[in-house]
Amino acid sequence: MKAKLLSGNLLFFLLVWSWMVFAPGGSAFGQADSAEMGIDQARYLEDSALIRRLADTILTDGQAYDNLRVLTKKVGARLSGSPGFYKAERWGWQALEEAEADKVWMQECMVPHWVRGGKDTAHFYGAGVSGGLDVIALGNSVGTGPRPLEAKVLLIHNFDELERRKDEVKGKIVFYNYPFNPLFVETFAAYADAVRYRGAGASRAAKYGAVGVLVRSMSESVDNVPHTGSLNYADSLPKIPAVAVGLRDADRLAALLEGHADLTVSMFTHGYMLPDTPAHNVIGELKGSVLPDQYITVGGHLDSWDPAEGAMDDGAGCVQSIEVLRALRAIGYKPRHTIRVVLFANEENGGRGARKYAEAAKEAGEQHLLGLESDNGGFTPRTFSLSLTDEKLAEIRPWLDLLRPYGVYAFEKGGGGSDTNPLKGAVGAVVGELKPDSQRYFDYHHARTDVLENVNKRELELGTVTMAALIYLVDKYGWNPY
Amino acid sequence: MKAKLLSGNLLFFLLVWSWMVFAPGGSAFGQADSAEMGIDQARYLEDSALIRRLADTILTDGQAYDNLRVLTKKVGARLSGSPGFYKAERWGWQALEEAEADKVWMQECMVPHWVRGGKDTAHFYGAGVSGGLDVIALGNSVGTGPRPLEAKVLLIHNFDELERRKDEVKGKIVFYNYPFNPLFVETFAAYADAVRYRGAGASRAAKYGAVGVLVRSMSESVDNVPHTGSLNYADSLPKIPAVAVGLRDADRLAALLEGHADLTVSMFTHGYMLPDTPAHNVIGELKGSVLPDQYITVGGHLDSWDPAEGAMDDGAGCVQSIEVLRALRAIGYKPRHTIRVVLFANEENGGRGARKYAEAAKEAGEQHLLGLESDNGGFTPRTFSLSLTDEKLAEIRPWLDLLRPYGVYAFEKGGGGSDTNPLKGAVGAVVGELKPDSQRYFDYHHARTDVLENVNKRELELGTVTMAALIYLVDKYGWNPY
Repeated sequence: MKAKLLSGNLLFFLLVWSWMVFAPGGSAFGQADSAEMGIDQARYLEDSALIRRLADTILTDGQAYDNLRVLTKKVGARLSGSPGFYKAERWGWQALEEAEADKVWMQECMVPHWVRGGKDTAHFYGAGVSGGLDVIALGNSVGTGPRPLEAKVLLIHNFDELERRKDEVKGKIVFYNYPFNPLFVETFAAYADAVRYRGAGASRAAKYGAVGVLVRSMSESVDNVPHTGSLNYADSLPKIPAVAVGLRDADRLAALLEGHADLTVSMFTHGYMLPDTPAHNVIGELKGSVLPDQYITVGGHLDSWDPAEGAMDDGAGCVQSIEVLRALRAIGYKPRHTIRVVLFANEENGGRGARKYAEAAKEAGEQHLLGLESDNGGFTPRTFSLSLTDEKLAEIRPWLDLLRPYGVYAFEKGGGGSDTNPLKGAVGAVVGELKPDSQRYFDYHHARTDVLENVNKRELELGTVTMAALIYLVDKYGWNPY
Repeated sequence: MKAKLLSGNLLFFLLVWSWMVFAPGGSAFGQADSAEMGIDQARYLEDSALIRRLADTILTDGQAYDNLRVLTKKVGARLSGSPGFYKAERWGWQALEEAEADKVWMQECMVPHWVRGGKDTAHFYGAGVSGGLDVIALGNSVGTGPRPLEAKVLLIHNFDELERRKDEVKGKIVFYNYPFNPLFVETFAAYADAVRYRGAGASRAAKYGAVGVLVRSMSESVDNVPHTGSLNYADSLPKIPAVAVGLRDADRLAALLEGHADLTVSMFTHGYMLPDTPAHNVIGELKGSVLPDQYITVGGHLDSWDPAEGAMDDGAGCVQSIEVLRALRAIGYKPRHTIRVVLFANEENGGRGARKYAEAAKEAGEQHLLGLESDNGGFTPRTFSLSLTDEKLAEIRPWLDLLRPYGVYAFEKGGGGSDTNPLKGAVGAVVGELKPDSQRYFDYHHARTDVLENVNKRELELGTVTMAALIYLVDKYGWNPY
């Protein structure tokens, strides 16, 4: 059936239909950029048709979802240094070869190697009540030793309160119950606001003699699944165990403590660090036909936290990036610049892969037009963030006419993510990231629910279409469109 | 914690922040409508602040999700005429009273009463193979009688092929395997293209002597869940049983039949119609303070198909509409026009509730400014479709500056849905509908997966915010903004 769907007449019909519905001059959207900017309509149609061909192959013959199925179900969790990560490296190599990269190689870097060491558990008791807590130790955290850690628990709402009550902290387990602020429409803003309690909470509490930390999970989901993620110990302070707590258990425990219940928490964790170990960025290229020494990088990160399959974070970004290469190849597009797909090592607890890639680019004196990443989940696309000036963003605004049919309606002034941003500092690349709809991301982020079943195939594919389209446009026009 | 989040300083900070990030003049979006249109900035800020207050109450104290939990888990399936529907009427009445409607009442209409009558089953055998089929009888369909229906199965890809092969149809079970076309980015377009096989397939096959029909489910999900929905028998032709088949089973059966396997299908269904029965639109009002005899209607439909809980279709639209009223009330807004929330009866297999509401409005000589509905799922908002001219759509374009922070970035020329469209013909109302992201809708539509767990709380709430904002703007400015 697939071949039939792509028959010439239907393709032409859809092209014209999508142009009529979505393209310049229509009343459907807030504006008609290209008309206002005086774009050559023939050029518009040429670009629109090429992007439609990219969309057609991604939506009908796409490999992104099947690749993600293999990565999540056959490889699974792949934290830096774990056996899963090395299995993922081999998967990435093979997937890039199957996508028909001209060249695939590995770029070595040294990565931290944290091990969870066992099943994390916690419960509370006292004041005539008791209950289990659904917890998961924070990444990089130390374990409690051979026995559970037990101590009175102190509810703390924010760092200001910690400072005010610092004399009460000694010998306690501090419970940071700082929620995502629901008034942030963009959930990444709520995450940025709250994540300091996960990152710095343990050391700030240890400074005043706390013996352990519970942190409300970085989420606003309706379920009780705890969410791990990195903490960073201050070198000068004692390292104390730290766990994230599921939201419903956090609510229950907080309600009891707000009622002045005198409660003890028992927590049992097993984490430890091993020496740094070698790992690799996995890289595939389509060689440029005109300017092969100038690069466009597109990537996601290959490592993932251990409780699940890393489907959203960041299996999605990996398979989307590979699919961009496959789709360009499938329609026979010859890129002017060399297009590199990079599956970065160690985003989650070190960023070593990104640093290595940027340093190597700088050492080799490479010119990079764009470093684009996808690390915000395989959700329905909405915008691209780009490290461009207002003036330059205005210049490329007409490209939105070409992206809108697939869901991207705006460029935002911003940057890339943690894997591409180093490329800006190192070689002056424009960096950017796909910003899909953010509402569901923190339901799954770093949690056991980050599984294939929570990725919608078409949302994943549409994000890929917009990435491929942007890369085509940058490859064709550089940053001087129309 | 909720009260604290709404404290004055934070609210002001967020207001200014959201204005800076999202509002006119920013580089974030494709354009700055209000600046170009010369909107009074003071008025813009007043509207922006009021909409922010609506958003604040919906995102922090919202009842939409809790209401949906009760509707889905305590009421559940609620097909017209079933006990569940009458339970839903009482739920709707109570929810509207709790939202502090000035007045709640029921509007009676007669509705069809189809009964599934039992568990639908099917399997195939022959050519050395056999297997079960995950099926569900189509709504309004007749049963097979006291015993299963068995016949050879004929694979048909589309109506053209049916006509060409009409001589082969007699005595057979016709299997329509027409897939959603993945090239339609908007999944409702794929549905519109395919749904004729569900609606008309049975009678068109019966015309040539078919004894039963299998229809590929109206979906493009990755799972095997079958999707029911209405069929319409032609009065002049024999009524034959018809079921929808899960997609993976449809793929398997089609592959065997493409390989010319000689297969028999056995299907067993139990559907029957009872006489029409009374049911009700459930209606709640906020009385207008200036023009109480002019109406703005917002609604969803209360009935739902029987295999699941009708969470997306259309519990979401019901609870969003109720929440619009609650939020307007909660912030103390006094509407100029009377705002009516209508929970329509019988959208799924008759449309009698919508017809009744429109007829009653016409008989009473009511003036209606807007009939807005939400019946495309509780997903993240994207656009509004409105039955306005290009000129009028251009006039209200500046409103997009006020809606963008919550996800709506475009108005589309179109209309409402099946519950509001009759209001246009009857009393000349402008009609419209919320168009949230469509990618996941047909994963759940009319299937046993249409449950609360597949609704994201925040996506539901953000859709509600945009509905409340649009209703506020229409109430304040009519269709003559700025």
